[in-house]
Amino acid sequence: MTVAARDLASAARAAAGVVGGSPTAARNRFLRALAESLRENAEGIAAANEKDLQKARGLSAALLERLALPADDVNRLAGGVDAVAAQNDPVGEVSDLRPMPSGIFVGKMRVPLGVILAVYESRPGVTADIASLAIKSGNAVILRGGSEARRSNDALAQCIASALAEAGLPAAAATVVNDGSRDTVGELLRCEEIDLVVPRGGRGLIERVAREAVMPSLKHLDGNCHLYIDASADLRMARKLAVNGKTRRYGVCNALESLLAHEDAAADALPPIAEDLMSCGVEIRGCEKTRAILGEKCAAAAEEDWAKEYLAPVVSVRVVSSLREAIAHINRYGSGHTDAIVTNDQSAGWRFLREVDSSSVMVNVSTVFADGGEYGLGAEVGISTDKLHARGPVGVEGLTTQKYVVLGGGQTRR
Amino acid sequence: MTVAARDLASAARAAAGVVGGSPTAARNRFLRALAESLRENAEGIAAANEKDLQKARGLSAALLERLALPADDVNRLAGGVDAVAAQNDPVGEVSDLRPMPSGIFVGKMRVPLGVILAVYESRPGVTADIASLAIKSGNAVILRGGSEARRSNDALAQCIASALAEAGLPAAAATVVNDGSRDTVGELLRCEEIDLVVPRGGRGLIERVAREAVMPSLKHLDGNCHLYIDASADLRMARKLAVNGKTRRYGVCNALESLLAHEDAAADALPPIAEDLMSCGVEIRGCEKTRAILGEKCAAAAEEDWAKEYLAPVVSVRVVSSLREAIAHINRYGSGHTDAIVTNDQSAGWRFLREVDSSSVMVNVSTVFADGGEYGLGAEVGISTDKLHARGPVGVEGLTTQKYVVLGGGQTRR
Repeated sequence: MTVAARDLASAARAAAGVVGGSPTAARNRFLRALAESLRENAEGIAAANEKDLQKARGLSAALLERLALPADDVNRLAGGVDAVAAQNDPVGEVSDLRPMPSGIFVGKMRVPLGVILAVYESRPGVTADIASLAIKSGNAVILRGGSEARRSNDALAQCIASALAEAGLPAAAATVVNDGSRDTVGELLRCEEIDLVVPRGGRGLIERVAREAVMPSLKHLDGNCHLYIDASADLRMARKLAVNGKTRRYGVCNALESLLAHEDAAADALPPIAEDLMSCGVEIRGCEKTRAILGEKCAAAAEEDWAKEYLAPVVSVRVVSSLREAIAHINRYGSGHTDAIVTNDQSAGWRFLREVDSSSVMVNVSTVFADGGEYGLGAEVGISTDKLHARGPVGVEGLTTQKYVVLGGGQTRR
Repeated sequence: MTVAARDLASAARAAAGVVGGSPTAARNRFLRALAESLRENAEGIAAANEKDLQKARGLSAALLERLALPADDVNRLAGGVDAVAAQNDPVGEVSDLRPMPSGIFVGKMRVPLGVILAVYESRPGVTADIASLAIKSGNAVILRGGSEARRSNDALAQCIASALAEAGLPAAAATVVNDGSRDTVGELLRCEEIDLVVPRGGRGLIERVAREAVMPSLKHLDGNCHLYIDASADLRMARKLAVNGKTRRYGVCNALESLLAHEDAAADALPPIAEDLMSCGVEIRGCEKTRAILGEKCAAAAEEDWAKEYLAPVVSVRVVSSLREAIAHINRYGSGHTDAIVTNDQSAGWRFLREVDSSSVMVNVSTVFADGGEYGLGAEVGISTDKLHARGPVGVEGLTTQKYVVLGGGQTRR
């Protein structure tokens, strides 16, 4: 039986009014109750997830990795919910209130967006992450996970429902839609009661959502992340960052996919990195200059390699003749997700930060730090590769907007 | 002959890199040169505008009012450009840089969006306003005005071009496209080199842009603005604000279209307001209770009246029984543009500010203050009725975005 999407959206809209107007304490009570419930039910949730995993046998290793939610990870999720609870309440905050020449005072007030729809695949942890960020920021949320994670999401939904009841918030403030019908998504995407849709998953899902949605979406596209080894780089640091970026996890969007090295550093920097990567089973595809340094252990990179998000044990390597060329390469072939420089030259670092047009730009840090938790957001709704509204890891603030507030004493305008 | 849209967009993309990387002083030099050029050529621009007006004879009074650009208004435009020059440079500003438990520092850097496309009708002043805000914020801009303002826009384009040259910025940083072909707009809307389109004009234009654009748009829709007279209102202030809001100018989006009055205040508040409005020739359409107070000078409002943006000497009036009912009415029938309360009760004022879901919410101020200049932005790109990214009058900040900057000392992630 299909859930009536419009009824869901209307109920969420009504609930959004209640959540948006609720005191900070009520929303934090929900978060603390959710964290507690996740901890109490960690084993049960992991057992439900185990059933999803059994049913999914035969899917790719990367997919199974994303689907898995062992009890340890449930406890980590609970820690994220606690971190969200500990953040300041953004709702109703007034900033930049200043007097104008006319005598009026003009400022901005932060307010919830209203109703958020999340459409995602695998990763059942997203259910708890997005529910906690949405309620903290005063919104209602409709959570639509993939059918492959149905049992896990049902178990998480129970924790969410009991935490809402404990906080005295309406059940429709966070609804997990788990009916397995593709049509439901299509119907939800046409509901004008929904203010924002967050698609998280493969390109197919994201493009479908962008095509069908009547509301704005916060897109989360490819992560073709670069590490550039500057002429002045500390080569031991470069080696650590390259290996960590590439081999920590292969299937994630902040993994390193392409390595650039300044020609003055390449001959010293690349051989030890290649050695480490190959000992982890990583295939290296390099430009001509890279191959001249690394020899036959390095395959020849084709033009397509520079733009590729491998999500696999493969890395492309290119030698460049300047910082300028590195920045131009990244802005041309990159996906605007996360890019890093290793350098001991401050001005090179700041130039990289300023000129690379990506949602996260880093100096002397591994790209895999691009993550809401590591950025102090507690959790993340996703990592936005859009430029407008929210860019990079999206937390509580990305689910709010600011309106102008104007205070006066009866001023009229000529 | 049609201008090749793709060439235009590519040239603008290249220019955006130059403007975004240019020092603050170069962008301010452009602004000061533009203001000076506008003042020097005020008479010539007004003469060109006079020719546009002659050609447009027969169009509605509201349209002609929007098209007119007398020399006084050119000087006012120049003042707006000066105000933009005087603002802080937002480009490259790093904020919220904080250490994280891992030892990395995470902050945000404000950066230009890239290439802005403005598509607008009449109002030639928009050409100077948007050019100055776009360059100040480090962007390139393509300005596409209406054919009815061709001569005015050509005259303004010359000032912009000479100011760019004087500042040493590329000519493609701000291009006025004035070829009169509707196809050019369609082609520009398909250019992926453009990061944001700002449509300003009638609903037809805005809906066309939303339908055809491959890039995000910043929409500027109807202004069905309300003034609510609270039970505790100062009735003399209410009278002033109602009359100023309705009669200052009829054809603008921040004009008052609907008046609400608390039932305890209505009998005293409405008759003097009605008297003033009718002496200005404003037609009043009221609910039953309003008609019981005002008698036959008040026509009966139909259900459609509550949602209407008249842009004409007409106002709808409704008596409500509570602040709650007033807020519910505004959130149901309003357009989310600008709404105001007159009250002497602080808690009523704050509740109105918090609960009315509009881009500008005001206490004891006339709605016609909703304007970039009055808000201290110098000028405005438009008044956004979207919730995401930028809401209300959009100035320099709305043409920028923030990316994460991450600084470390070689941290890797477990």
